Parts: sequence; C-alpha cells; structure tokens
Amino acid sequence: MALIVQKYGGTRVGDVERIRNVARRVAATRQAGHDVVVVVSAMARETDRLLALAHQVAERPNERELDVILATGEQVSIGLLSLAIQELGCRARSFTGNQVRILTDQTHSQARILRIDTRRVLEALEAGEVAIVAGFQGVTAEEEVTTLGRGGSDLTAVAMAAALGAQVCEIYTDVEGVYTADPDLVPTARKLRRISYEEMLELASLGARVLQTRSVEYAKNYHVPIHVRSSFSEGGGTFVVAEDAAMEKVVVSGIAYNVNEAKITVAGVADRPGVAAKLFGAVAEANVVVDMIVQNVSQDGSTTDISFTVGRPDYRKTLEIVRGVAVEIGGAAVLGNDQIAKVSIVGVGMRTHSGVAARMFEALAREKINILMISTSEIKVSCVIEARYAELAVRTLHDTFGLGEPPREEEPLPVSTGAAPGRAGRGGRRGAARRGAPRARAARRR
Amino acid sequence: MALIVQKYGGTRVGDVERIRNVARRVAATRQAGHDVVVVVSAMARETDRLLALAHQVAERPNERELDVILATGEQVSIGLLSLAIQELGCRARSFTGNQVRILTDQTHSQARILRIDTRRVLEALEAGEVAIVAGFQGVTAEEEVTTLGRGGSDLTAVAMAAALGAQVCEIYTDVEGVYTADPDLVPTARKLRRISYEEMLELASLGARVLQTRSVEYAKNYHVPIHVRSSFSEGGGTFVVAEDAAMEKVVVSGIAYNVNEAKITVAGVADRPGVAAKLFGAVAEANVVVDMIVQNVSQDGSTTDISFTVGRPDYRKTLEIVRGVAVEIGGAAVLGNDQIAKVSIVGVGMRTHSGVAARMFEALAREKINILMISTSEIKVSCVIEARYAELAVRTLHDTFGLGEPPREEEPLPVSTGAAPGRAGRGGRRGAARRGAPRARAARRR
Repeated sequence: MALIVQKYGGTRVGDVERIRNVARRVAATRQAGHDVVVVVSAMARETDRLLALAHQVAERPNERELDVILATGEQVSIGLLSLAIQELGCRARSFTGNQVRILTDQTHSQARILRIDTRRVLEALEAGEVAIVAGFQGVTAEEEVTTLGRGGSDLTAVAMAAALGAQVCEIYTDVEGVYTADPDLVPTARKLRRISYEEMLELASLGARVLQTRSVEYAKNYHVPIHVRSSFSEGGGTFVVAEDAAMEKVVVSGIAYNVNEAKITVAGVADRPGVAAKLFGAVAEANVVVDMIVQNVSQDGSTTDISFTVGRPDYRKTLEIVRGVAVEIGGAAVLGNDQIAKVSIVGVGMRTHSGVAARMFEALAREKINILMISTSEIKVSCVIEARYAELAVRTLHDTFGLGEPPREEEPLPVSTGAAPGRAGRGGRRGAARRGAPRARAARRR
Repeated sequence: MALIVQKYGGTRVGDVERIRNVARRVAATRQAGHDVVVVVSAMARETDRLLALAHQVAERPNERELDVILATGEQVSIGLLSLAIQELGCRARSFTGNQVRILTDQTHSQARILRIDTRRVLEALEAGEVAIVAGFQGVTAEEEVTTLGRGGSDLTAVAMAAALGAQVCEIYTDVEGVYTADPDLVPTARKLRRISYEEMLELASLGARVLQTRSVEYAKNYHVPIHVRSSFSEGGGTFVVAEDAAMEKVVVSGIAYNVNEAKITVAGVADRPGVAAKLFGAVAEANVVVDMIVQNVSQDGSTTDISFTVGRPDYRKTLEIVRGVAVEIGGAAVLGNDQIAKVSIVGVGMRTHSGVAARMFEALAREKINILMISTSEIKVSCVIEARYAELAVRTLHDTFGLGEPPREEEPLPVSTGAAPGRAGRGGRRGAARRGAPRARAARRR
C-alpha cells in the first residue's frame, strides 16, 4: 500500500491500443491497493503536429500562444486515458496543469515549477479515483498556460511525486532501465539495479537519453526515488536514488558515448587575457552551445591552442564564425573535425578511487585509440576520440571496468509495483526488481 | 468606433490559409478603430476527430472527460488565430473558457452559461489587443471544463457580446445571410436585410440552419443585435434584431422547408383521456423527439386519429413502438409515411394580418398539392405535404407572398463593419449593408 506516481511518455500513449495497455497497467496497480497518480505526455507525434501548424501560421510563433496550442496535446491524452481506465471498471479523473494546479513562473516554453497544489489530487485519491495529470504543462498565477520544455512530463511526474510525498516515481519508457552501456553496442551490457542521481545526471547529459536532466536534478533535490522501467515487461528496471556507501564501492557505473559532436581547434592563439572571451562570445552570440573546452599550456609562452566541441548540426556555422574571429585574435590556423566521438566513464566511486582515469587511458592505448581531448569532473572522465573507434572504445572500457559482471551486493530498493494482474499486491514486493532482473538483463533496447 | 464581437465557425478556420483570411478580416476591423473580440470554433473536422478517438476508447465516454478532450479543439484554434493576427502586425491575445472566464453550470456536454467575467478581455482591449476567445467551452466554479453543446460557439459569441455590451455580434458563416428561401431552390430568393429574433427562431428550428436556436434566444433576451454574414464578401448580411413596427408590415419574411421528417398516424383511437399520454409517453421513453402533433376531431364521437412527425432517422423505431402501443389504446390502424416534407411560412406580420394561412392553402391547392397536416403558431404556418412537391411548394409560396421583390423601406441598422482594408472606418458605415445588398442579392449559398 503505497502512493505511486507513474509517468507514461508519448509513445506509450501513441494510439488507442497503447492507451488501453497503459490503462491495464494502471488499473492493476490500483487494484493491488496502491494510490496511483498517472502523468502522461501527448500522444506520439501530436506535439510535432501542433508545432508544425503553429509554424505554418507564424515563422516565429509567440511563445505564449504556442504554449496554449501545445498544452492541448496532453489534455487529449489525460481525457482518453481516464476513459480507458474507467472502461476497466476503475474510477479515474483527469487534471490539467491548471486544475491540479501546477503553478509555474511566466517563462513560456521553459517554465519553472514554483508550487504544486495537492488538494484536488488528494481528494481524488481519497475518493478511490486514479488521478490522471497532464504532463509538460503548468499555469501561472494569472491563469496563463505554460509548458515546461521538451521532456517536461518527466519533470511533472517527479514534481508531483515530491509534492505528494510518493514512495516512488515510476518512469515508463521503451527501455528496460539504465544500462552499463548501450546494449545495442555491448552484448554484455547489464541493466543497473540502482544508480545515484549524480551518475544519472552525467549519463543523461552524455547522451543516454532515458531521463530528462532537469527531472533528475529535481528528484535529487527533493529525494524522490525514480524507477525507470519498461511498460512492456513486468521486471524491475533501474532505481535512481540518493548515493549511499555501497555505491562508492563501484568505481565505474556506466559508459556513455556521443557521436553527435564536432571538434574545432584554433591553433597559435596569442596567450593573453580576453582571447577566450572573444572567441566564445562570438560563438554564444550565434546561439551555439559549446560542450567541452580545452586549452593547452602554451608551449613557447606566447601562443596557445584552444579546442572545443559543439553539436554536429552547428559545426559548419561555428567553423565560419571561428574563422572570422581567428583573424582578430591572431589564431594561426583553424582546424575542424566532425568525425569524432566522446566516450565517458561515469561513477561515484571515482571520488574515492585513484587511478581511474589512468586505467581508462591505458585501455584505449592498448587498442591504439588516440585521445584527442580529455575532460573530467568529480565522477566522470570523458575522452574525445576518432568516431570510427567509438564502439571499440565503449566495449573495451566496459570490459576494463568489469561492468558485464553482476554486482556482488544487493541493497534494499524502494517500493516496486508489478503489473501482472493477480501478482500485484503480494507480499515481498521489495524484491520484485530482483526477481525480474535475470529476465530483464537479457532484454535489449527496443 | 465600436465594440464588435465576431464569430468564425469551424469551416472558417478549417486550414491555415483560411485562418489567415480570418486574421486579415479581424485586423482590418481593428485597424478601422474598432475594439474586436473574436470567438472561434475548432478547426473543421477536429471535433469529429476527437469524438472518434474518445469513442474508440469508450463506447459511452464519460461526459466530464469528453469535455476535457473536446475543449482542446477550440484551444488550438484560438492560439493559431492569435498567431496569424500577430503576423499582420496587430496585437492579439487568446483566452480559453477558463481564462475569460465563462462560468457555466456542471451539465457536461450541454452546459448553461451562468456568468461571464469581462475583466481580462476588457484589459486586453484597453491594451490595444484583439481578444480571441474559445467558443463552445466554459468552466465551472470548481474549475471543471464544460462544453455548451453543438453550435455552442454561436452562444459563446452572443453571450460575450451581451456581457461586454457590444454594439453587434457578427456571425461569419458560409452563407451571405438569411434568405427568404433556400437560394438553391428558389432563384428569386432574396437576402433579408433584417429579421426579428422571433422569426429567426422559427426559421432556425425549421431547418434554415444558419444560427443555433439557443444563441438566438440568448440574443433576444439580452437585446444583442446579430449580424449573420459571409466571410467571403464585404457586403452586409442579415441583421437579427428586436421586432419593430416596420417589420409588422411584412406579412411573411421567409419560407422554410424540412424534408428530414416522417409522419405516423394512429387511426381509430378511442377518444378518451390518457390515450395521447400513453402514446407519446412510449415514444419519449425511446428518446425520440416529436415535432408536430395533430389530433382530429372525432367523427363519430368515440374514435379519433392522431398524427405526428418525427425525425426520419427515428421513423422505423417509432413505427414499431407505436404499433405496440396501438393495440393497448385500441388504434384501428397505424399508418406511416417517410416521404413527406414540411413547408412553413414565417413572419411577425401574421400577428396583425388575417387570412395569411388561407392564402397559403389556396396557393398550394392551385398547384394541386395536398396538405397532410397543418400546424400553426403566432408567427408561423406549417404544412406537411408529400416530399416530391416540396420544391414546387416553396417556389409557389415565395411568389405568392411576393418575397422576390425588394423591400420598400429601409430601416437604420446597427453598426456594420466592412472588411476591405482601406474601406473600413469610412463614414456612412450604416449604409454598408445597403451598399452591399445588390451584389449580395445575386450571391448564392456556397
């Protein structure tokens, strides 16, 4: 008997048949005796359809009106899911962001949640109803419709879970959970039972696009356990939780890679203050987001090299900008490379284990993989390498840090719900994720 | 300089190009110096698409959730229209039923408007913005989303006009206005410059489906002048206004006809109390709406005939019910005919002119058209005839009552807006309908 928030994304409610599937899972959870709050996204492709309509009318649509238009996608979803749950003989009630209400600031298209009123949702739960909440949308104090940005439904779910003090926030997705590496790339990749918020943040921003970054940050701040799991299977997925002592024993939790970046180097730049500011000021003005920046120690004491990476779609544009600026800052040459990959190892254990980066570099060297750039954080080491070595690098690092081996210890997990009617509600629920693990381990990203 | 409410239906905003056309007309009205409040419906077919989705999920969808789903149609329209108006350099702001707010009772799918707050709309107008209001939807005191029923956007427009004290409520449709008869049927049919609310109500319920009946009643109660006009032409349409002395001089304003009814007669019924109650009680129980009811004087003092009409889709069902009841009430025979038409003459002048019905019967007799049923009200005479004579009857009556001739007198009209940029805002605006009349007279229902 727990209060559980479940979030289903756009592909989960992509058509009527899928909506029925979600309804069955929700109803089973409810019938197992749990209080259930469901957060849903717009049906797959609906947000894109609405965006396209708006862009047909206006090249740069006013963001207030765009939010009014986009918010309808989730409103349709909550109504349909509520109907589907009712068809199963389960009571349900839908809530828009305004009805809940999910109070946000006035930043249209990227609003921040300020406060969530829980009164109406709690009343629904007390009346034995499943509460269906529209993801992605909120409302300002002046009744203006706002949206939370791409992936905002994850944030809605985590914020609802925090406001309600839910035992767990289940994020249903089309993968079984968070893996030690991309299972398509690494046959021995293993689904993680648990991962810390910090590690998830690094993995999320590194391209393992399971969870929206802001929602993980929110969960971390409000101590909301997230359970990333598949809506296709009943096995447990991955719990994203606060770091604990056991986690530190694992040096590396996962390997991420990203082949959607490009690298630009300005060589022979005058080594004096203001040069970097000028260079990156010009890049920022063009709305290009820069990821890694590396500046080498100047060799002759007067010039230096600056390298940085940008998203591949911005590569050509950035290259031109940099060529223009290079003349001003006395850069001898501008070199570009869009055939690169960024490979990263992530793990909270790095904080307490030395030599982790060295092991990574050695492993890559053994495979004759040249490292073009290095960047580190407290719990991450990233290397930029040539793109053609990306898969080899990921597999090598996965082996090097023993990620294919099952973990030795198992820690208690927050509440886990099964979805099979008749199974849900049994005792020993905390072990559900463990029971499901062997099967899920073999599963692949769909 | 007036405050004008304009309402555009679903086909007016059916695609992006049409939305742009509407935006141009709105912007021209605004640029002529008027304050403009626009009420829009969902894009054509959108409500049907949403209904179909809901019915795929649930055979009999919960009406609360259905309203949540359906209300999104208008929400998309207001956003898109607002964007389109902004593209023309005109300030605009959209409002959902909740944002306005349009307070209704809790009768989902058929809600009644209780009160309209005008504060936010007036603030928008004062700020020089066009206010775009979602038609068809409202909100209860408990923030529940409600809808006003089919054609509810007309009602929203009229109610907004009443609440704001607008000079006129312009209803843009795909016809040029209200005609003396269906122009497709009667080549000499003439667009009416003015018609009373009462006549419009009779014509609306008789099948001239230009305006929703409830909106005409609302306009009548709150003295809102309605201007029914085409969004394709700049000529004036038809003003629906309070009856005045000049109107009474015109005996018949228009001819309506309806070929979607069927007639059922129970002959030889015992002429005693309770018989009609039993018959129509059984019909009502099956949710069949009965239109005309005629009971003949009993010929032998002991039995009588009862005839009535129902919508053609209900014909078979009703016939079976009546056959069952006829046995109980001693009916000698049940006769049915679904090849009938109802032809009606409507005019407030009938109140003060005698012999109008007789002229109608004579005209039909001259054409050897047999009258099967007759029903009258204060300002209407309806005859049921065989369906194959419907067109002949309408043309004959149109001639008989001289409806093809232009009216002799012209009365002052409420404010009329032209839409052609550069024309709008000129003096002598009251004559716009008159100026446009000769052109519009030749126009046909599209």
